[in-house]
Amino acid sequence: MNKERLMRKVFELAEKGRGRVSPNPVVGAIVYKNGKIISEGYHKKFGGFHAERDAILKAGKKTKGSKLFVNLEPCCHFGKTPPCVDLIISSGIKEVYISMKDPNPVVNGKGIRKLKRNGIKVEVGILEKEARFLNRGYVFYHEKKRPWIILKGGSTLDGKIASSKGESRWITDEFSREISHILRYNSDAVCVGINTLLKDNPSLTPYKVRKEIHPLSRPVRVVFDTDLRIPENAKIFDEAGIYPVIIYTAKKKEIKKDGVEVMKVRKKNHIILKDVIHDFYKRGFQYVLVEGGGEVFFSFYKEGFVDEVYYFYSPKIIGGREAPTLCDGEGFSLKNALVIKEWEIERLKSDFLFHGICSQV
Amino acid sequence: MNKERLMRKVFELAEKGRGRVSPNPVVGAIVYKNGKIISEGYHKKFGGFHAERDAILKAGKKTKGSKLFVNLEPCCHFGKTPPCVDLIISSGIKEVYISMKDPNPVVNGKGIRKLKRNGIKVEVGILEKEARFLNRGYVFYHEKKRPWIILKGGSTLDGKIASSKGESRWITDEFSREISHILRYNSDAVCVGINTLLKDNPSLTPYKVRKEIHPLSRPVRVVFDTDLRIPENAKIFDEAGIYPVIIYTAKKKEIKKDGVEVMKVRKKNHIILKDVIHDFYKRGFQYVLVEGGGEVFFSFYKEGFVDEVYYFYSPKIIGGREAPTLCDGEGFSLKNALVIKEWEIERLKSDFLFHGICSQV
Repeated sequence: MNKERLMRKVFELAEKGRGRVSPNPVVGAIVYKNGKIISEGYHKKFGGFHAERDAILKAGKKTKGSKLFVNLEPCCHFGKTPPCVDLIISSGIKEVYISMKDPNPVVNGKGIRKLKRNGIKVEVGILEKEARFLNRGYVFYHEKKRPWIILKGGSTLDGKIASSKGESRWITDEFSREISHILRYNSDAVCVGINTLLKDNPSLTPYKVRKEIHPLSRPVRVVFDTDLRIPENAKIFDEAGIYPVIIYTAKKKEIKKDGVEVMKVRKKNHIILKDVIHDFYKRGFQYVLVEGGGEVFFSFYKEGFVDEVYYFYSPKIIGGREAPTLCDGEGFSLKNALVIKEWEIERLKSDFLFHGICSQV
Repeated sequence: MNKERLMRKVFELAEKGRGRVSPNPVVGAIVYKNGKIISEGYHKKFGGFHAERDAILKAGKKTKGSKLFVNLEPCCHFGKTPPCVDLIISSGIKEVYISMKDPNPVVNGKGIRKLKRNGIKVEVGILEKEARFLNRGYVFYHEKKRPWIILKGGSTLDGKIASSKGESRWITDEFSREISHILRYNSDAVCVGINTLLKDNPSLTPYKVRKEIHPLSRPVRVVFDTDLRIPENAKIFDEAGIYPVIIYTAKKKEIKKDGVEVMKVRKKNHIILKDVIHDFYKRGFQYVLVEGGGEVFFSFYKEGFVDEVYYFYSPKIIGGREAPTLCDGEGFSLKNALVIKEWEIERLKSDFLFHGICSQV
């Protein structure tokens, strides 16, 4: 029995739930017996069966004397569904292999202890690092008390996100934009600065990959709009019943539209990013995608709120000393430049992608 | 006998002369007989033996009845050395395999005709496209009457070549800079704009890869300095005996320094790039490397004088709406953005490299 190989399979199963289970983690499970996989399960959507339950129910009576593989500690509390631990015990599973303890304070070791008390052999820590990365938003949320923040930009080779005349549609190709939509689909909130909104009038919905609607209406769409300049007919106001809109502003004013919320975030003349992030936390956002533009990106870097980046580069040169770039603002000194240590580059269709990890999970 | 495999070996040999043979092309040669390579040769430096001569002399009497592989048509004229064609004929070689005809008007088919007239079997066109690319500067020079122009930039992920405070040393790492020095070493001229010179005070010599000095003192160092602002003590003036300096300007003024030449290029207020390029041609420059900054890069793109690019990216973010980027100037509209169709990306040490080809050879 190759525990790591089986656990990687569990990760693949878990990944299938991505984008539909938040604020739950993605979880996969395998029931294994006599050298064979008896059944596979995963957590499909928020409110649905947990992965363990899914796999155990599929295995039926064969669970007796079997081994269970799962990337996260099974729950021991009543939530939307009854505790998985009780089902594991009653199903006659003998051994449970777990990647990581659940950092959620309502579980956090209690599930493991209950399994052990009931005579089940438990091993924790198989591919733990990978399992934490798999659920980096969930882990970060519970341990650091803030969401995992992902920056996504699309630029030319010279770093421009629009021409000096303000044209930005489209710099990257269809294929890159589809990946961007998957990132939206997988996020609890998608944010944009008012300059980009005025320039592009984006919907910020994952319409290219529209699959099932998230039971909690996600992603929420967020606009940073210090002076509340957003036009009445902005495209973002469409479909606010499915994907709600939050506008963070320094102005005291209201917008009366269904699904639209205006949040005043302290101080007269600018938005306090720290307060926004805390508000995200209170709302249960674990994965927040920030789509620019350059001034917004700079604020996030400056305040230390960048955990992961996706930069799509189109092999073009557009030039323009006035054209907006992937990071503007007042800029850092060379000594204080932000260095991304963990990264990879990948050639896509006509563009290439730089994917970097800035924070440790 | 795999002709293409042998020719690729010839290319490898040719490549060894890169940077020392200009204005000659890089050439390799193999003498082949009874299924075996008898000898290998290449053109080592300007004024030295041609590749064919090198290989034939090494083979000695074994050339009788052999086959010769060479990436360029053998010469038939007296230059620094006697014609290779005569040596091939007298050495008893029976068959000659050539990638491409020599575009230099003093040869251009005459060598091939003479071989054939002397009863030697000649095949031309083996990996011709690759052979043309191997000597793209030489081919371009003779066919298009201008040098092959290579842009080299080093930037952060957001396209910045310096911080908003003007710091640029160093954005890329030691390893990337070593590759840049190889590019300098392989060029006839290395150019920089006055803004970059004032900011960085570069030497523009290939000091990291200093090997043998080029017999014709190359690379020549070039500064674009419209108003002749270059300081008396600029570092570029050092070693002007080994690597001469040309300053293109719109001002009428002289600088009296050994190895330094001031060239006034028409018009009062700006340099005419077309005239500069033509001057490069008259000086016999086949490979010209342009190292920036952003304003110079924009001019080259705008005038259509970019044939190849090397962009080194350091996985850093520096930001700054005032910071100079890989391409500044007034910029293009999105519709007129320059699209680089042939390109590859490669992970280096701590940076990555985008290498693109913009012109067809």
